[in-house]
Amino acid sequence: MSSELVQRLQAIVGDACVLTSADDTAPYLNDWRGNYLGCASAVVRPASAAEVAAVVKLCAELKVPIVPQGGNTGMVGGSVPDASGTAIVLSLKRMNRIRDIDLANNAMTVEAGCILQAVQHAAQENHRHFPLSLAAEGSCTIGGNLSTNAGGTSVLRYGNARDLVLGIEAVLPDGRIWNGLKALRKDNTGYDLKHLLMGAEGTLGIITAAVLKLYPLPRSTCTALVAVRDPQAAVLLLATIQAALGDRLSGFELMARICLDHVVRHFPATTEPFSAKHAWQVLIELTDTRKDAALEDALGAALEPAFDTGTAIDAVIASSESQAQALWNIREHIPEAEKLQGKSVKHDISMPISRIAEFILRGDAALKAAFPEAQVICFGHVGDGNLHYNLSFPGGAPTAGQTRTANTIVYMLLDELHGSISAEHGLGQMKRDEITRHKPAVELDMMRAIKKALDPQGIMNPGKVL
Amino acid sequence: MSSELVQRLQAIVGDACVLTSADDTAPYLNDWRGNYLGCASAVVRPASAAEVAAVVKLCAELKVPIVPQGGNTGMVGGSVPDASGTAIVLSLKRMNRIRDIDLANNAMTVEAGCILQAVQHAAQENHRHFPLSLAAEGSCTIGGNLSTNAGGTSVLRYGNARDLVLGIEAVLPDGRIWNGLKALRKDNTGYDLKHLLMGAEGTLGIITAAVLKLYPLPRSTCTALVAVRDPQAAVLLLATIQAALGDRLSGFELMARICLDHVVRHFPATTEPFSAKHAWQVLIELTDTRKDAALEDALGAALEPAFDTGTAIDAVIASSESQAQALWNIREHIPEAEKLQGKSVKHDISMPISRIAEFILRGDAALKAAFPEAQVICFGHVGDGNLHYNLSFPGGAPTAGQTRTANTIVYMLLDELHGSISAEHGLGQMKRDEITRHKPAVELDMMRAIKKALDPQGIMNPGKVL
Repeated sequence: MSSELVQRLQAIVGDACVLTSADDTAPYLNDWRGNYLGCASAVVRPASAAEVAAVVKLCAELKVPIVPQGGNTGMVGGSVPDASGTAIVLSLKRMNRIRDIDLANNAMTVEAGCILQAVQHAAQENHRHFPLSLAAEGSCTIGGNLSTNAGGTSVLRYGNARDLVLGIEAVLPDGRIWNGLKALRKDNTGYDLKHLLMGAEGTLGIITAAVLKLYPLPRSTCTALVAVRDPQAAVLLLATIQAALGDRLSGFELMARICLDHVVRHFPATTEPFSAKHAWQVLIELTDTRKDAALEDALGAALEPAFDTGTAIDAVIASSESQAQALWNIREHIPEAEKLQGKSVKHDISMPISRIAEFILRGDAALKAAFPEAQVICFGHVGDGNLHYNLSFPGGAPTAGQTRTANTIVYMLLDELHGSISAEHGLGQMKRDEITRHKPAVELDMMRAIKKALDPQGIMNPGKVL
Repeated sequence: MSSELVQRLQAIVGDACVLTSADDTAPYLNDWRGNYLGCASAVVRPASAAEVAAVVKLCAELKVPIVPQGGNTGMVGGSVPDASGTAIVLSLKRMNRIRDIDLANNAMTVEAGCILQAVQHAAQENHRHFPLSLAAEGSCTIGGNLSTNAGGTSVLRYGNARDLVLGIEAVLPDGRIWNGLKALRKDNTGYDLKHLLMGAEGTLGIITAAVLKLYPLPRSTCTALVAVRDPQAAVLLLATIQAALGDRLSGFELMARICLDHVVRHFPATTEPFSAKHAWQVLIELTDTRKDAALEDALGAALEPAFDTGTAIDAVIASSESQAQALWNIREHIPEAEKLQGKSVKHDISMPISRIAEFILRGDAALKAAFPEAQVICFGHVGDGNLHYNLSFPGGAPTAGQTRTANTIVYMLLDELHGSISAEHGLGQMKRDEITRHKPAVELDMMRAIKKALDPQGIMNPGKVL
């Protein structure tokens, strides 16, 4: 049955770009966390929006489901097919050209398959800054970043992925190309369709290109680690620094003691940053476009009242780039160190910044009561209200029952505090059912109505999001 | 026929809040530019989302069109009904409570009918900044601002209205309330419906409340007027200052010579800022959260290379608040001065910043060729690529034919330069047909499909946008 499909796909993209053997297709069928192993009748690698459009048109005609895929680095199984084998995977990785850089407009037009790091580098070569930055940047693609509205470490200062976009080009579920590549900072001429497609995880169409915003290059940086009394003190310190230094604050990462313990244990090159072991610390990064911004002095002055009130209890301000990198190393090694400790129940969650302290207090207590032997590993982007809040068990990988119970405790508390069960990773397959227990029915109905209106055959990434 | 409607509306909101007499309804039926005079069977003034929902449910049952209205300060006839008299106007102005201010989360929950200025003041009283700012701020409402994705003078630094929102509450066309009042900075759990309703000009539902972002209060300001060689020099200067000073740049307003002539003529309290009369000048505003930001020095240093290359040819840096206000007065009096000169053909347009100089050069030439006696009045937000580009005729108000020809010249040039026929005012009634000549058919189809999916009866603000 798939041989007609395969032949017609080959006619569109060429024989070499339709993969069907088990060896060739394997990397496209398994998500990188190893949680979802799918099956596909073919993996198709078009090289242009026109080829994407022809593939989608064919699939619409034959009612073949399409799973769009970028770097396949997603955390929730959104970019791999289900096990039925009826779908094709449409990989955007060959669409990796930077089409245009318009410096006077601070804009860059890129194709969906560009690796995020290549986009960052192209900006830098042109003395501009493209701020989206996340762990997978060496292999994730910008198309995937936009389809999932990626977050990362610069959201505090620059916003989420969707905030970095002026326009997009997309292939719709009927195979038509929508050229929405406007490079405008103001355009009030109807519904904002780019914001609808961004974050839709490929269920409403396939983003094939985008006009990205570029920013002035920061030329001063200051990195510091500040030990704080408790999570509430971290939130207070955030407000103090923002009031004093505004948008210079580009990073504000909370880390619990246990995170440092694990990092120091598993990465001998990292060392304890303070002579004392503090329960909570915040990694702070300030940046400025000015060369002579004197950020160390400014941060020192901003910290003074925090020391006076006991909000801050210790601080290291990096005096060199290597010291700054050493501080960032601690933060960046947490996920790996955690992995080396064994599997855990992971939560990528958000809440109003004002509820972070309460969440940690109550979440810790509830998890401790349910699992006296387990340990909470808490770190995250306090300035975005985004915590990575994981639970590790001494006996190794958590059971399905433990995972379910831990999820229930965390998600119910989030409901009460008006938080979200997915801050930056999206829904994909993993949280597709869970979200129906947390989102208002009317909102789910609107989403379904829009899905039905734009993809009446339901061929775009079925089984994800909705 | 309308008496059943009126009685049932009265039962929902009370007799006093259903207006039907000509005197009472007049202010709601005429747009403030005086271009659109409509008719309505009633003006309804609900006081809560529940009342809005009940009114919409009733209208859905009776298939009565609804025109949502805030401060009725729109520029394109989006907030007034057509002449048929079949619609009701649903005024949000009684929903004017500030529901909540969460300082630690830098967020404020407000009802749709809050006057923009009241929102700004509430933020300021809490030592926060709500940056949306525009000429009508004393009478426009935040609900209208969000429904039209308002622009204004702070877009360069803070983005459009939609960028200032964390969540919304809306009543859908079937009368259900969608509570999307999440106060989260990261939330990837499905389609971004708030961005769909914002900018939809009330055609997909009625925004009844919103969670707004608050920002640190700027504590240093520097205002300057810089004469530049030509529009291209203005664009170069923008890049220079952004590279040096980043987000400190909060205003960058281009003004042609004729704007100053008109202002000085009609407002004797204003004076020529320079001893020489320069063809083009830019009003620059820098702000900083730091008290001791030394912005004058920073601006002086940033301007130096611009003087060396002849990009800048003269500059006044305000040395007091009253001097700064005097410079802003020139900019702010342009629209009034223009009005006193007589009616003109107005264009609220945008383009990539890199095309501004070319647009002005070619637009001026084409208009000059078509109308040798007319004068172009050009000013605007260069940092947003947004020009107010108007044409005034010595004989007084332009004829319909002159207006049509001028529009055609401007809009065709914009198409070529990938610009937009509505930068910040929206489509409303005025540009609803025009947009069909400039937007791709596939985009219009998507808009229609979404409209049909969410408002199958077509009762939400019919005749606007689509």
